[in-house]
Amino acid sequence: MPPKVLPTIHHRQQVASSKLFRIESLDLEFSNGVNRQYERMQSSGRGAVMMIPFIDEQTFLLVREYAAGTHSYQLGFPKGLIDPGETPEQAGNRELMEEVGYGAKSLTFLHSMSMAPAFFNSKMTILIAQNLFSESRVGDEPEPLEVVHWRVDDIPNLLAQEDFTEARSIAALLLMEKWLRS
Amino acid sequence: MPPKVLPTIHHRQQVASSKLFRIESLDLEFSNGVNRQYERMQSSGRGAVMMIPFIDEQTFLLVREYAAGTHSYQLGFPKGLIDPGETPEQAGNRELMEEVGYGAKSLTFLHSMSMAPAFFNSKMTILIAQNLFSESRVGDEPEPLEVVHWRVDDIPNLLAQEDFTEARSIAALLLMEKWLRS
Repeated sequence: MPPKVLPTIHHRQQVASSKLFRIESLDLEFSNGVNRQYERMQSSGRGAVMMIPFIDEQTFLLVREYAAGTHSYQLGFPKGLIDPGETPEQAGNRELMEEVGYGAKSLTFLHSMSMAPAFFNSKMTILIAQNLFSESRVGDEPEPLEVVHWRVDDIPNLLAQEDFTEARSIAALLLMEKWLRS
Repeated sequence: MPPKVLPTIHHRQQVASSKLFRIESLDLEFSNGVNRQYERMQSSGRGAVMMIPFIDEQTFLLVREYAAGTHSYQLGFPKGLIDPGETPEQAGNRELMEEVGYGAKSLTFLHSMSMAPAFFNSKMTILIAQNLFSESRVGDEPEPLEVVHWRVDDIPNLLAQEDFTEARSIAALLLMEKWLRS
C-alpha cells in the first residue's frame, strides 16, 4: 500500500479552554474527498518523562498518588512534565528528587511513547534510573507521595494490583522487564 | 502505611465544554489540610475496548489510522468505545467488523487498563480475538483503515516502528506476548 496522504486541514479553531486545557476543532478533508470535523487537545509542546528507579538490582520504586480523573489513589512510576530548557534526563532527575527523594547518577533511555494520539500530541520518554543517591527537592505536590518498593521477581503480582492500571506504567514495566532480560 | 484517605471534594464545576469534551474543576482538600484546585475531564461513563485479532497462530492484525492529535497516521490495535447496552465482547466484535472486516468466534479477556487517571476516568478492556471469520460492517470511519499483518516472531521490529507509539497498544502487545508464553 502506498504511503498515506494526510488529510488537509482546511480550518482550525479553538472551541473551549480552561486553566489546563485548550480544545480545538479541525475541519479536515481526507484524501478520498470525505470531509469531517475532528476535535483535539492543543499541545503545550512540553514533553513528559517517566522514570523506573532501581534502588538495587532487584528492587524498583513506585509512587502512589492521588488521581483526580478517577478520584482514587493510583500506583505507578514517578513522572512529570519537562520544564522549558530541561533535557529529559534533567527533568527525570528533578522529578525523582521531588517525588521519591532520590537523584540518579545514571539515566538510560528505554523507550518513547504517546498517549491517545487521536486526541493528544504528548510524547513521554521512559528512563531507567540507577545509582540513586538521597536528595530531596520540594515539588508542587499537595502531600508527600507514598513510595512503594517492588521486587523484580514479583512483577506478576504488580500487574494484578487493582491500583496499577495506567497504560503508560504497564508499558514501561514490561519494556523494563524485556530490557532486564536482554 | 495506612490506607490513603481520599481528598474531600468541596466543590465541582464545569468550566469548559465542546462537542466531545467537558472539563470540570474540583476544589479539593487533602487529608493533611492542604487545599488545591484540580481540573479533570468529565467521563462519558462509556468504557472502551481494544482487540488483538489473530488471523492465525503466528499472525495478528493492526490498523493504521489517522490521529488528529499528532496529525499523523498511527499504527495500533483496533479499538473503540462501548455503545450503551453492549458488553465489551459485543463492542469488540462490532469494532473488528468495522475496522478490519472480521468477526471473532472467540474473545478472551487479557487485561484492563486506564489512561492518565490524573485527568481521565476511562477504562479500556483488552481482548484477544481468535477464530476470525470474514464479516464487514460500516462504521463511522471517514476512510477504510489500512490493515497490517504482523508476525509474533517479529514483535521487536514492531516496537521499533516510528508510528507504533501508543502506550495502550504497547502495553497490550507486551501483555499478549506474556499470555502467549504462559
